Amino acid sequence: MKVAVIGCGTIANAAHIPSYMNNPEAEIKYFCDIIPERAQAAVEKYGCGTAVVDYHDVLADPEVEAVSVCTPNNVHPTISIDALRAGKNVLCEKPAARTYKEALEMQKVQHETGKVLNIGVVNRFNDSVNLIKKYIDDGKLGDIYHVHASFRAHRSIPGLGGAFTTKAIAGGGALIDWGVHYLDIVMYCCGDPKVKTVTGEAFCELGKDMKGYAYTDMWAGPPKYDGTYDVDDSVVGMIRTEGPVISLHGAWAQNIGENECYIDFMGDKGGIRLQYGKDFTVYSSEYGALTEYKPVFKMRDHFQNEIDAFIDCIKTGKKLPSHIDTVIITAQMMQAIYDSSEQHKEITLG
Amino acid sequence: MKVAVIGCGTIANAAHIPSYMNNPEAEIKYFCDIIPERAQAAVEKYGCGTAVVDYHDVLADPEVEAVSVCTPNNVHPTISIDALRAGKNVLCEKPAARTYKEALEMQKVQHETGKVLNIGVVNRFNDSVNLIKKYIDDGKLGDIYHVHASFRAHRSIPGLGGAFTTKAIAGGGALIDWGVHYLDIVMYCCGDPKVKTVTGEAFCELGKDMKGYAYTDMWAGPPKYDGTYDVDDSVVGMIRTEGPVISLHGAWAQNIGENECYIDFMGDKGGIRLQYGKDFTVYSSEYGALTEYKPVFKMRDHFQNEIDAFIDCIKTGKKLPSHIDTVIITAQMMQAIYDSSEQHKEITLG
Amino acid sequence: MKVAVIGCGTIANAAHIPSYMNNPEAEIKYFCDIIPERAQAAVEKYGCGTAVVDYHDVLADPEVEAVSVCTPNNVHPTISIDALRAGKNVLCEKPAARTYKEALEMQKVQHETGKVLNIGVVNRFNDSVNLIKKYIDDGKLGDIYHVHASFRAHRSIPGLGGAFTTKAIAGGGALIDWGVHYLDIVMYCCGDPKVKTVTGEAFCELGKDMKGYAYTDMWAGPPKYDGTYDVDDSVVGMIRTEGPVISLHGAWAQNIGENECYIDFMGDKGGIRLQYGKDFTVYSSEYGALTEYKPVFKMRDHFQNEIDAFIDCIKTGKKLPSHIDTVIITAQMMQAIYDSSEQHKEITLG
Amino acid sequence: MKVAVIGCGTIANAAHIPSYMNNPEAEIKYFCDIIPERAQAAVEKYGCGTAVVDYHDVLADPEVEAVSVCTPNNVHPTISIDALRAGKNVLCEKPAARTYKEALEMQKVQHETGKVLNIGVVNRFNDSVNLIKKYIDDGKLGDIYHVHASFRAHRSIPGLGGAFTTKAIAGGGALIDWGVHYLDIVMYCCGDPKVKTVTGEAFCELGKDMKGYAYTDMWAGPPKYDGTYDVDDSVVGMIRTEGPVISLHGAWAQNIGENECYIDFMGDKGGIRLQYGKDFTVYSSEYGALTEYKPVFKMRDHFQNEIDAFIDCIKTGKKLPSHIDTVIITAQMMQAIYDSSEQHKEITLG
Repeated sequence: MKVAVIGCGTIANAAHIPSYMNNPEAEIKYFCDIIPERAQAAVEKYGCGTAVVDYHDVLADPEVEAVSVCTPNNVHPTISIDALRAGKNVLCEKPAARTYKEALEMQKVQHETGKVLNIGVVNRFNDSVNLIKKYIDDGKLGDIYHVHASFRAHRSIPGLGGAFTTKAIAGGGALIDWGVHYLDIVMYCCGDPKVKTVTGEAFCELGKDMKGYAYTDMWAGPPKYDGTYDVDDSVVGMIRTEGPVISLHGAWAQNIGENECYIDFMGDKGGIRLQYGKDFTVYSSEYGALTEYKPVFKMRDHFQNEIDAFIDCIKTGKKLPSHIDTVIITAQMMQAIYDSSEQHKEITLG
Repeated sequence: MKVAVIGCGTIANAAHIPSYMNNPEAEIKYFCDIIPERAQAAVEKYGCGTAVVDYHDVLADPEVEAVSVCTPNNVHPTISIDALRAGKNVLCEKPAARTYKEALEMQKVQHETGKVLNIGVVNRFNDSVNLIKKYIDDGKLGDIYHVHASFRAHRSIPGLGGAFTTKAIAGGGALIDWGVHYLDIVMYCCGDPKVKTVTGEAFCELGKDMKGYAYTDMWAGPPKYDGTYDVDDSVVGMIRTEGPVISLHGAWAQNIGENECYIDFMGDKGGIRLQYGKDFTVYSSEYGALTEYKPVFKMRDHFQNEIDAFIDCIKTGKKLPSHIDTVIITAQMMQAIYDSSEQHKEITLG
Repeated sequence: MKVAVIGCGTIANAAHIPSYMNNPEAEIKYFCDIIPERAQAAVEKYGCGTAVVDYHDVLADPEVEAVSVCTPNNVHPTISIDALRAGKNVLCEKPAARTYKEALEMQKVQHETGKVLNIGVVNRFNDSVNLIKKYIDDGKLGDIYHVHASFRAHRSIPGLGGAFTTKAIAGGGALIDWGVHYLDIVMYCCGDPKVKTVTGEAFCELGKDMKGYAYTDMWAGPPKYDGTYDVDDSVVGMIRTEGPVISLHGAWAQNIGENECYIDFMGDKGGIRLQYGKDFTVYSSEYGALTEYKPVFKMRDHFQNEIDAFIDCIKTGKKLPSHIDTVIITAQMMQAIYDSSEQHKEITLG
Repeated sequence: MKVAVIGCGTIANAAHIPSYMNNPEAEIKYFCDIIPERAQAAVEKYGCGTAVVDYHDVLADPEVEAVSVCTPNNVHPTISIDALRAGKNVLCEKPAARTYKEALEMQKVQHETGKVLNIGVVNRFNDSVNLIKKYIDDGKLGDIYHVHASFRAHRSIPGLGGAFTTKAIAGGGALIDWGVHYLDIVMYCCGDPKVKTVTGEAFCELGKDMKGYAYTDMWAGPPKYDGTYDVDDSVVGMIRTEGPVISLHGAWAQNIGENECYIDFMGDKGGIRLQYGKDFTVYSSEYGALTEYKPVFKMRDHFQNEIDAFIDCIKTGKKLPSHIDTVIITAQMMQAIYDSSEQHKEITLG
């Protein structure tokens, strides 16, 4: 199956491209990037494909069956929609879009075209997350009444003044960039429950005085002090669903100590703390004694799992848990948090 | 100054009585308890005063100028109001009452009588807390935009089935018993800002099946399996004020690991984590470098500070930060959290 | 209930006497010891009872309902039998006797008299052991096919040359003194299965050259170099039962490193390692992941549990798991190990 | 000297072939494997020899003086016997055969032909093992009265459902695959004492429900769920010899914690714990003080030692400690353990 990668930046090189290379059925025909050098570098590094600058050239090739969209958030909708309309199957990186409205538009075109539109919520292909889902589905934790998601960092604002911190490009900051993964894991493990109320506050505090932001390292850096910083560097919120109550507290930067990045699933029979990106601990009791343990299992690469499932679903027609129809709910939740923050009051959904 | 202690249980013996004994101006004239043996035991242990069973006997003595109310929550209002009307100055243990309405009634009588009515929000006399207040008031942390209060325990339900877990007596569980201190510290340090919106959910989950509750130790125990358990064992909430946004997450019992009991004050120039009941850490930056340190200072006994200030204010007429007029706001916030939890929606105040 | 303690040495003072003192229904009327000073010291230390030298004086008092036999092993049978025949209920320390034949005699008299005869297999009253029994009975470990008992010490020969190391007094060494507890735990947790074959070898090696035995500390010491050393300082064996195969390897002294004192219960679904006298670890799997944890629970004093159960069973007539009828099987197993060792071949039972 | 390697799998590539390559006198003329690609791959990798599929072609070449037999266990006897009869000297991997009877047949042909037949009991060429043998032979440990061999793993079943776990091919499981090395070391260090009684039980428990076997890694994997699993995954036994008593407890998989792989030599003057494949610790005493230390020495590659000795003995006629005449005893012991396990009773030998 011929595939193309549109956008050859960090996530493409770290995840999509190597996973396609390892998949026995996929063959990368195009590396596309608006920076010609990046596309060409990929061709040379991976020893296959053609470098192109304009993604329309990729879409015009009838041999290409699938594309990965790995661009900044602001062009996710346009490229994905154009690809779907050109008859391509699409794996678009997260978040689906900057706003709920844009995401709905993408979903609409998916429904019209019938082609695959999956979003890169890669944790749905993570073995640790899927094992937690089994614990919950099987009732080992009893009724999950509350989930708390913490994604708090001390100093991790990415590319101060660049695409990540410019709302017109990224759509948001810590919530849309990191929170999307945490909310997605919560929703997935809890069976994608319907959302009822959302309240939240997003803060733009530590990066607003760009020159005064002290740090030691910066990913996606270095800072562009003549750029824009108008996104949330921290966020807090509370969401009622038909399942558990969800609370969240995250930050790219906060005046705290160590990073605190975990999700706590609290059930009446047991609980799980997932250390984000790592293993998890089960807290429970049996025969009147308290128990605490970390299950040991083989962790495969979740990006590989994701790409393999994408290729497979194109052939089989199987609907994946990363389908836009599922992911749209997280887009709605994040939109509601931003809306609630602007209006300083709770938002009631459906 | 002749004083009386009404209710001779744990908090009276651990805090009020020894502090009165240490105060050079106070003399305990009565130990009052509905259990005669407890009052008598206090007389013998401390070598002073008279044991009485009916608090009206205390109030009838014109020599008594001040009383401490150390009873279960449900009789705080009646005894405090009777005492005020009998012309006594009152230090009533926290929480003021089971409900906001009861607390308002207490405040009304304070206003009518003009006698002192302080509530036992002892952290307002804690040296650690007062030092944090100085950091904030002095602007060292910049603008405090968010405070997060965490009072989460693994297994600490007190006296399962007893007074603590019976709503008709205690008015609530983890929130009213532990949360009251955390919210009070936040309000005090942030200048008692006006509250705008409150949303929260209180959960009654881990103790509801009393026989199935596994634990190793129990304070205020042992369990009474034929008793009542209808209070919150955990709670989550978010509060918007004219100052910072406040988020809270607390539990007497939750399926998590270690206890996590702290308050994070997040400012745009610095932050503080107070380890509840212990010391605190300051996170900030200077000259482009990040700093983190624990101030070292002398911690006096906060109960002694509280009693000394109470005796002093009776003489001087000085209004303390523990006056019912201040504490009433926390009572309103807790009421709003419980109301929000029942209605599953945000409450707008003022 | 009036009770008497016969033999006022280490185990009496460490376990029996304090537990009777704590039991609200028991009252120690006699402390009996052939060394008059030891009996008198107990009277003075515990502030109750009368000191006697001849146990017949105790048995002659019709008020005494129960006796603890805490003497060296060689007089367990005579005193216990005399006490039963005098109408007393008996708790005799472990091992029941030096030989299986003696133990059978004790059982016979218990059957004739109908009075209680329990043996001090105190682990049957240990909370850790009972919790393991629940795991096994409930099927959490699946089928237990093999149990390995390790009670290996580097240097722990007690009272070299004294009662412990003299076969005519003690009946044996490491096996009868330590192994009895391990075998008893195994039998108890596995439902006291019928024994089929026993093979074993008992070694008298490290203490045989008494002067050449290097050590740093010695319990029940100091050494009597003119005494006797003719018991096993280590033992190995294998037992087939109608339940699991049991292997054992123990030593008072061996040229190994750290002490290795544990019991491994191996089931096809899970396993448990009990660290003797401490907590235990559960090894299992769920949802394809491997798990390992130490249950946390409240450990009560097992000697207190034992004495409380003894007093209680006299009143209620309830048969305890420490009844001679159960313990007799362990006596038979130990006898068979010693017999197998002498004959250097496997013994087939029943 | 022209040699041939029959069977070009794991052990051939890891041990035999590189050692022949390093031996200045040996030259590999044939790589033989029933999978032609494996033989050809060896030719290419090592740059010498000819690839053949049928081992008879090797035996037909009069230039070949020696062969290594590195095939699965089931064809060890046939190929070794054919080779001996063809006048070749043979180094056959361990175990000699699946059964004692097959091993006896091999020994018989060795005696008839007079050619060398050594078995791959490589530990007899291990420097650590030989140093222990020196300690024992020299009397430093006194009389060795008991040796305990522990080869217990948590999760190490190889190639579930494949050749290793199929009795018709391998002859057995953990005992024949791992235990053979441990028993061989014990016998070698203790002077190959005559065996008197053998009792044992072999368990087929953790792999029997193949789908339910949880693990993280698998050597010689992946699992073949449509294959066979009918071998011992754990074993326990006790052996009386004219020298020490030997106890053994081993497992490819058991519900325990860490792997416990060691041999304890217990003497009346000292003891040694050999950490299998690693170093060893000596426990002893001198001048009344206890000592514990790990001798430090140069460890050479034991496979190289083995091959060098094999080549040398062909020239010199020297009989090695790995001669079938010695190794036959271990084959007899393992057979007796399996027999004892089937009959559930002790076996008396010779």
